[in-house]
Amino acid sequence: MKCSYPLQSSPIFGGINDQQFRTVEQLLHQQSYSAGSYLFHQGDMADRLFLITRGEVEVLEQSGDNPPVRLAVRGPGDSIGEMCLIDIQNRSASVKALEPVEVLYLSHNDLCDLYERDIQLYVLIIMNIAREISRRLRSMDTLLSNALVQKNSD
Amino acid sequence: MKCSYPLQSSPIFGGINDQQFRTVEQLLHQQSYSAGSYLFHQGDMADRLFLITRGEVEVLEQSGDNPPVRLAVRGPGDSIGEMCLIDIQNRSASVKALEPVEVLYLSHNDLCDLYERDIQLYVLIIMNIAREISRRLRSMDTLLSNALVQKNSD
Repeated sequence: MKCSYPLQSSPIFGGINDQQFRTVEQLLHQQSYSAGSYLFHQGDMADRLFLITRGEVEVLEQSGDNPPVRLAVRGPGDSIGEMCLIDIQNRSASVKALEPVEVLYLSHNDLCDLYERDIQLYVLIIMNIAREISRRLRSMDTLLSNALVQKNSD
Repeated sequence: MKCSYPLQSSPIFGGINDQQFRTVEQLLHQQSYSAGSYLFHQGDMADRLFLITRGEVEVLEQSGDNPPVRLAVRGPGDSIGEMCLIDIQNRSASVKALEPVEVLYLSHNDLCDLYERDIQLYVLIIMNIAREISRRLRSMDTLLSNALVQKNSD
């Protein structure tokens, strides 16, 4: 696997030593997307985490008949779709490449195999994913609270 | 430990068998709060998860000098503060008892001890906590998206 981005510094792999990282690398798969194409659409079944190694993407959410709202822009070093490794559900948002994008992905099944092979390493990755989701929930809490305050003061 | 609420049906203990549940029960501590008192304040150091067994609480977040905003109301069977078992940080919101409230709590240290004693049970609990955080993030995403759409259409 060739990857110019220092993958080991991704939050998902925090606290993982070199030997453990070689095990993780065997689980990762590479994929490329052209500008304007979608990594996935809201509502798709979700079974893999994406790690962006090149380019930027936008996270779009559509509610009912309203136009899609941009929730975030993510770039190299960011991960997308952590939640599906915890709990397989439909994608809660769409993700679109803003330019040529390269990713590595880790599938739910590969992570389940890791539970059998190396449970300590499995726990490290799950805890890192949970921390990432937790950080996003905190920032969402703040954004929502600000939006509610602004709405009440309008 | 006496508890009228069927604790084993809490999402945090999903998939845990009777024998494992007896191990978990030894880690839980009971506490009571009078109406109007705070379980904790925004900004406090957070080191425990609360499981509400009686009464309702409100989750309040304050941003800057704005008045506190009610983010949610939680009652028996609900858990509060899962995030601190994943990542010790300051409390992102305050929680206030709306009536006499009883809780059970699980501390970060007790959960760390469980990693050494029974790593499979530890994984089950961590995965359940992560799923709960993930569910909350999904519902926050939708609330925020609706708030942004409404703001754009005002």
